[in-house]
Amino acid sequence: MLTPHPLPFHSLPHHDGSPLYVSTQTPTLGDVVTVRLRIPLAFGDVTMVRTRANPDREPRFGDARPLGPADGHVWWVADLVVENPVHGYRFLLTMADGGHWWLNASGLHDIETLDSEDFKLVAHPAPPEWAATSVMYQVFPDRFARSDAADTREAPDWAMPAEWDDAVDQLPPGRSHQFYGGDLDGITEHLDHLERLGVTLLYLTPVFPGRSNHRYDAAGFVEVDPLLGGDAALIRLVEAVHARGLKVIGDLTANHSGDGHEWFQAAHLDPSAPESAFYYWLDAEHRDYMSWLGVPELPKFNWSSTELRRRFIDGPDSVVARWLAAPYSLDGWRIDVANMTGRLGDDDLNAEVRQTIRRTMIDVNPDTILLGEFTNDASADFQGDAWHGAMTYANFTRPLWSWLARPDPVSSFFGLPLGTIPAHTGEQFHRAHTRFAAGFPWRTRLATMNALDTHDTARFRTHADAEVVPVAVGLSVTLPGIPVVLAGDEFGLVGVDGEHSRTPMPWGSAADPDVAATIDLYSTLIGLRRGHEALSTGGLRWLYVGEDALVYVRETEQESVLLLATRAAAEVTVPGWVVPVSGLSGGVPPEVGTALCTVSDAGVRLVAAGASFTAWALPGVTIPPDEHLVSPRGLAR
Amino acid sequence: MLTPHPLPFHSLPHHDGSPLYVSTQTPTLGDVVTVRLRIPLAFGDVTMVRTRANPDREPRFGDARPLGPADGHVWWVADLVVENPVHGYRFLLTMADGGHWWLNASGLHDIETLDSEDFKLVAHPAPPEWAATSVMYQVFPDRFARSDAADTREAPDWAMPAEWDDAVDQLPPGRSHQFYGGDLDGITEHLDHLERLGVTLLYLTPVFPGRSNHRYDAAGFVEVDPLLGGDAALIRLVEAVHARGLKVIGDLTANHSGDGHEWFQAAHLDPSAPESAFYYWLDAEHRDYMSWLGVPELPKFNWSSTELRRRFIDGPDSVVARWLAAPYSLDGWRIDVANMTGRLGDDDLNAEVRQTIRRTMIDVNPDTILLGEFTNDASADFQGDAWHGAMTYANFTRPLWSWLARPDPVSSFFGLPLGTIPAHTGEQFHRAHTRFAAGFPWRTRLATMNALDTHDTARFRTHADAEVVPVAVGLSVTLPGIPVVLAGDEFGLVGVDGEHSRTPMPWGSAADPDVAATIDLYSTLIGLRRGHEALSTGGLRWLYVGEDALVYVRETEQESVLLLATRAAAEVTVPGWVVPVSGLSGGVPPEVGTALCTVSDAGVRLVAAGASFTAWALPGVTIPPDEHLVSPRGLAR
Repeated sequence: MLTPHPLPFHSLPHHDGSPLYVSTQTPTLGDVVTVRLRIPLAFGDVTMVRTRANPDREPRFGDARPLGPADGHVWWVADLVVENPVHGYRFLLTMADGGHWWLNASGLHDIETLDSEDFKLVAHPAPPEWAATSVMYQVFPDRFARSDAADTREAPDWAMPAEWDDAVDQLPPGRSHQFYGGDLDGITEHLDHLERLGVTLLYLTPVFPGRSNHRYDAAGFVEVDPLLGGDAALIRLVEAVHARGLKVIGDLTANHSGDGHEWFQAAHLDPSAPESAFYYWLDAEHRDYMSWLGVPELPKFNWSSTELRRRFIDGPDSVVARWLAAPYSLDGWRIDVANMTGRLGDDDLNAEVRQTIRRTMIDVNPDTILLGEFTNDASADFQGDAWHGAMTYANFTRPLWSWLARPDPVSSFFGLPLGTIPAHTGEQFHRAHTRFAAGFPWRTRLATMNALDTHDTARFRTHADAEVVPVAVGLSVTLPGIPVVLAGDEFGLVGVDGEHSRTPMPWGSAADPDVAATIDLYSTLIGLRRGHEALSTGGLRWLYVGEDALVYVRETEQESVLLLATRAAAEVTVPGWVVPVSGLSGGVPPEVGTALCTVSDAGVRLVAAGASFTAWALPGVTIPPDEHLVSPRGLAR
Repeated sequence: MLTPHPLPFHSLPHHDGSPLYVSTQTPTLGDVVTVRLRIPLAFGDVTMVRTRANPDREPRFGDARPLGPADGHVWWVADLVVENPVHGYRFLLTMADGGHWWLNASGLHDIETLDSEDFKLVAHPAPPEWAATSVMYQVFPDRFARSDAADTREAPDWAMPAEWDDAVDQLPPGRSHQFYGGDLDGITEHLDHLERLGVTLLYLTPVFPGRSNHRYDAAGFVEVDPLLGGDAALIRLVEAVHARGLKVIGDLTANHSGDGHEWFQAAHLDPSAPESAFYYWLDAEHRDYMSWLGVPELPKFNWSSTELRRRFIDGPDSVVARWLAAPYSLDGWRIDVANMTGRLGDDDLNAEVRQTIRRTMIDVNPDTILLGEFTNDASADFQGDAWHGAMTYANFTRPLWSWLARPDPVSSFFGLPLGTIPAHTGEQFHRAHTRFAAGFPWRTRLATMNALDTHDTARFRTHADAEVVPVAVGLSVTLPGIPVVLAGDEFGLVGVDGEHSRTPMPWGSAADPDVAATIDLYSTLIGLRRGHEALSTGGLRWLYVGEDALVYVRETEQESVLLLATRAAAEVTVPGWVVPVSGLSGGVPPEVGTALCTVSDAGVRLVAAGASFTAWALPGVTIPPDEHLVSPRGLAR
């Protein structure tokens, strides 16, 4: 379905949820929020702008007020009252020729648009302030590092002990059972590495006991696995992380437990057990049961049980609360299989479960983050009522691979049976990114994980030429969302699937020139991210979208950062200029990267000699003052 | 965001929810349903087709089996297990060159697609079988016809009596209070007219007492307004309607009552009243209260009250049940302001209310229809759990006007402050129709109202040249959905807004040649609809979409109907043929309309001399038998 764009990207009206365009990031019900729209003069003669909100699902229109032009744009402002916890709105632009355009989170439209793609003000409790500025480092504890204490521990019955340098076994029985013995003190001992990278948020896959190396088959939630060093090791790790000003979150399986879990063990074959209602039984003897994708080791929780909620997610004595409180003091949770949690047949308790989890978290410590795994279209569940952000592959990871990776044959492309990695253009990257991000409130976009890969996937480097790695990492640190480093990516590790990607960290190679250069690349790009607030919370405007090149800018009132990502040599001209470059003429020096940026009366010209990622720091954006109101017809061009 | 189409419409793969492509219209949880996909040979070399379902929100892929070519198409079939009450699915096509296409309810896509636009199998109880084959006739009782008994009734205190030929007063106090005295026996006396038109479903706006001519300010739900003839008149009307094999539904205001309602009267200023919890009070004295869009005469219901539910919607003693049971025996309800019902601030009880209404209806008579008013993007609430269809303007009415009406200045375009009626192309019509229909399950599309106008809007004829009226009516009777005639449209009435459109029926003009011709036009086109089951329940394939012309076909195994709608002279060639035209060569005679259709080796050529609507009856579609399996590579072209 063609939605024709009237003009190139840099000439399009723009609004997003960032502070440039929305007066508060934390509205509450009943608040008046000012929203701003910015229209390049080149867009044409806009005579009227209206907001269209949708309180209680009945459209309500309001007039916007035009401000004078600033830096080649006309700004319009309007006030909205936040009437529902998720208060959608869009803009209606009337042109001098009588035509209309609608602007919503999926872009500019010449016909009416869907409610689901409205911009959204969210009055639910906000994510912690640090969510959007985080840079995540994902650690799979069995494979990160062994402390000396690890040598003293005996491998459990399910384990197949492996030496640190042993190859990862992708097939059963090694798969899931190969045991390298990494532990939490091992992580604590390597926090210097995290600081060198500049990451700020450590995400640990499960640390509770299981009968596998991944521990997603929890045997209990009341103690940290002694194989990882137990509760005391977790306390040591969290204290050390916090001492460096970093955060650390855990990982809970809310969809299922392991079949070795004490609750399941009690209820299996014993219908009279108090835990009987925690699972879905298929016979009166409680022999067979529903499990995650039919894997019998992972019996599925039945969240209609109030007692399960009480023990696991609801209130100060629950598992969810316990590990956020002192002395453990985790800074939040990533919830495994959040998409399926509470859903089976005609049961759908997902909203109740996620909202209960978040309510419990807020009671123990509101300054915590809640992420949910939802690897495909996550928007319906991620409207701000509980999950702060998604671990998803739809809006960033798969589009990124499809643009930058080689079109190699793969048995599964993040769960899709495509046979090969898609060979997409930059235009398709942009369209896929926009399609799947448009359904998220802005705050959700900012807290959603921009992962190149995770412990469940192949590693990006496996299918990517070395020269596009900076492009991929650059995109992950400059598009809205939390950049993610899967431990080992910075060592240039490869992995053909999730199992294979769980390679033990090759610490000994850190000084190899190639590895050191890769670590430096990550460090540099994470430094770029952390050095510019605009890259975390600034607005996102696309200026050029082509087959091999993407140009966009992240903007605040204080600063702007111009970004060019190319997968091949490219020359791009953006006519007109996006922000004033005070005191600069001719070439603008990059902050990171090697592409060239020159400014002339014709606009900005960006030239990249090949695959590249380049950032230019620029002045911030000037919003005309509100008293600068002009009549629409008085907007001299 | 451009989604490029690789080929013209007639060369695109196709699937929809109709029996050609889905083995049952009434699946239940756990059923295996066979779905079929049809790919024109011209689309290219498809080597593999997979289904992608999403049970419990986790993607599940399945292989489709190719059948041999039939009539220029290759068919693929796959089996799906219905695992959730709304079970989404899409298709993934792999091409010989390694590329992929996704097909969902919004069309063909070169990137991944949104869950909300999946095709959907719905395991909720189905609408009555007659829903999709209905042709609706909407009557506003005060303005339809007066029986002799009307002369004997005294006008109530709120009323401003008017003579039948008086002009409608669009402004207060006449607005809402001008009282013409039409009654239910008046309708009963004119059922011959309904039969002449061929309509099958009478929709009455409210018949309960109010303090206005529209009665959307209900003063009670326990009796039919005596001004309309009371309960006995309703019983007479329903019996007469049923005797002719027609159906009749009522209209309930579930969002609010009138301030004259017995419940409100009891609770207003009396916090101790049992009905106190039925409304939203703004002060302790129960003086001020929330109301519909701030109109004090329409206090908003608070559906958190169990007692309100019991009296109004829940169970056999409720209002909802009472009027469906004998002796009243209505065939269903249209619910007013369904979009806002149960929604206010952070309350959202809409799903509970609509599901309770439907459950109550099923208990008293499952063979009833439930329609909900939702004038914009209705998809989120219309997934099949309660509302069978929407009274909405987003997917048909506004796109229709935007293509066919004059771009006249209007103060409101169905609630949108556009200033003028949009001047859209046929391409925009198609895109808007598709965008807003894609979110509906197929069964919801079939039961959604295709209205040119309603009692709340201007009449189409007001802004349309006479020659496009057949085009508009033609589209309404041949696109998926329930065609709607607002009483008076068939007399050529005009109306500049909802109030003005409530003109009393000009019965005396029925014999005027222009009026008779218009009535005949409606009768002919409704006859077309009713004479071809394919136009109610057949699949919908678009063959050509242009600025001034639309070509589509409704198809079943038994028959196909080819449709051409033009707003100006047009010549369209559809290369290849869509269905075999047995025994026809050269010109194909139309069933309705005057455009020319000729068949040659080059394909089908359609020629219209101006604005036109033409239908051709053709043979049905041949599905190759399942045993006709071939290997994908064996599909000789």
